[in-house]
Amino acid sequence: MSGVIARTRVPASNALRDIQEPVREGLDRVVEEMQRIVTDDLPLIREVSGHLLQIRGKMFRPTLALLASQIEGRPQSRVTRLAAVVELMHLATLVHDDSVDHSVLRRGLPTVNSLFSHQISVIMGDFLYSRALTALVSLGDLEILKIVTDVANELTIGEMRQLGAVDALAFSEEDYTHLIRAKTASLIAGACESGALCGSSQFRGPMAEYGDRLGMAFQIADDILDYTENESTTGKPGGLDLREHKVTLPLIAALPRVSAAARRRIDELFATESPGDEIIADVIGIVAEAGGIDYARRKGEAFAHDAERALRVLPESSVRSALTDAIAYVMDRRS
Amino acid sequence: MSGVIARTRVPASNALRDIQEPVREGLDRVVEEMQRIVTDDLPLIREVSGHLLQIRGKMFRPTLALLASQIEGRPQSRVTRLAAVVELMHLATLVHDDSVDHSVLRRGLPTVNSLFSHQISVIMGDFLYSRALTALVSLGDLEILKIVTDVANELTIGEMRQLGAVDALAFSEEDYTHLIRAKTASLIAGACESGALCGSSQFRGPMAEYGDRLGMAFQIADDILDYTENESTTGKPGGLDLREHKVTLPLIAALPRVSAAARRRIDELFATESPGDEIIADVIGIVAEAGGIDYARRKGEAFAHDAERALRVLPESSVRSALTDAIAYVMDRRS
Repeated sequence: MSGVIARTRVPASNALRDIQEPVREGLDRVVEEMQRIVTDDLPLIREVSGHLLQIRGKMFRPTLALLASQIEGRPQSRVTRLAAVVELMHLATLVHDDSVDHSVLRRGLPTVNSLFSHQISVIMGDFLYSRALTALVSLGDLEILKIVTDVANELTIGEMRQLGAVDALAFSEEDYTHLIRAKTASLIAGACESGALCGSSQFRGPMAEYGDRLGMAFQIADDILDYTENESTTGKPGGLDLREHKVTLPLIAALPRVSAAARRRIDELFATESPGDEIIADVIGIVAEAGGIDYARRKGEAFAHDAERALRVLPESSVRSALTDAIAYVMDRRS
Repeated sequence: MSGVIARTRVPASNALRDIQEPVREGLDRVVEEMQRIVTDDLPLIREVSGHLLQIRGKMFRPTLALLASQIEGRPQSRVTRLAAVVELMHLATLVHDDSVDHSVLRRGLPTVNSLFSHQISVIMGDFLYSRALTALVSLGDLEILKIVTDVANELTIGEMRQLGAVDALAFSEEDYTHLIRAKTASLIAGACESGALCGSSQFRGPMAEYGDRLGMAFQIADDILDYTENESTTGKPGGLDLREHKVTLPLIAALPRVSAAARRRIDELFATESPGDEIIADVIGIVAEAGGIDYARRKGEAFAHDAERALRVLPESSVRSALTDAIAYVMDRRS
């Protein structure tokens, strides 16, 4: 089932370690900087922040920002704060997303809304975002501020697109492309572009393009995973998107190709408020059968190839290799 | 029951019109600018934005920003965008507050969470805030950006203070002062200070001080109103804070002075999940009897006098008169 690029890779967790090798020390500094930025006297903020820094994931976006800053080996020290801000903005978005979706778990730990309250998650997301911006303003770079605030706005538009999709099954591939560009690719592209501005700024254009295509491939791979994996490998149950009536590329691609009977089964799922395991498994089977997963995989690979092409103007280096490996990591990841 | 300053004033609605007189045309431009900033192609965003611009209130903060920009009569045109950003940030905060509080009405119109959904109000607040910041970044003034992002952070800390108050009746006057400075005075001070930076920047210090004291007086007056007015005059039911177990200055001041029996009645209210009208009326009576309302009024008047004193370095002009009138307006307002 795996795509061309994915086939050639080592397991994802090792791959990420390799990718992070050139920026290992930088990442440690980013974590410290994140802690500094969210520190506050208020006990409740301390408590929630502490929990959030635990939820903090694999630091993929800071890794990209750091790599982008040292394409020619001379990163500016301010990239540490930039990378911390990018990850905190990502965290802020996750906190609000979990609150909106009433999610209970995030990376195996309780979400802020489930552990504290819905109220606290709304305000804590605002806190993270405003603290991140305060830190970014202190860098004093209006170009970086423009990139990051534009991304912040894109992220909210992405969420609104998702909430505004009234007739889920009328969601087109174009709608989907707009959605994932706003909700996922924009921040990854912003991390890469603003990272380049903390190093060799002549690469900001190619890095923005690389980040955009990488982000698109990343989200498509994520959406495919929901069709192909089960709880034991990803830490979250498969078919979650279908359960929540979220329409992603595999289903969009499958819809025009399914039989009338299959379509009725899909409609039934979307008419059921809490669809059960059986109907979800049926629809996953229908989508796979109709080639929806293969179609999504081909689209993802096309974005991956575009990302690789964007890197060609970069000088050969361990950084360029790591950025190339990041593409394979995204395509191959299992969680 | 009214305080010294309040007694001398014309009715509030007229007073606000007078205060806004020197900036009337500027305010019209601010409204247009707000519309421009929140415009988006996405139908759902258009719909919610349209509703929000209706909820938009009396434009008190933009009025202050505009007045502060023309202390010496030469405002820069960028103050329009600044004032629009300040009001949009205020709106964003209201949207999240209403969502957190499950409020149904705001200024007589349905809240975003009640008219649309809780989800939409969380993301729409984020949208407003991020759009406002994008507009602010485009002004290209790092000093103003610092003021406004610091305020945004203060606002969230204020909300967290409110959410983190576990034992409501242990809330001290110092806690209260911190809370209202963060949730109310910070934005009013920020509007005044950044407004001055769009005009005669030598007044930024006095205007920041004026805005802080005015904001403190504003919130105390608001909290007193909840004890003294009823639904017909303010458009919201009296005793709402008590109903929601929110402890404000009149109660804090009254608590150490009440009888044991009165204290038991207060404890009973705070132990009741949805207290009824009778017990709320009783506690309002207890607080008034113990001098809590008078105490709060004196505190408010002290802040009002400090605000007036901060204005003394300003040249005499219609702007200074309007800023002085704004103090009386805040003290006298009935809604």
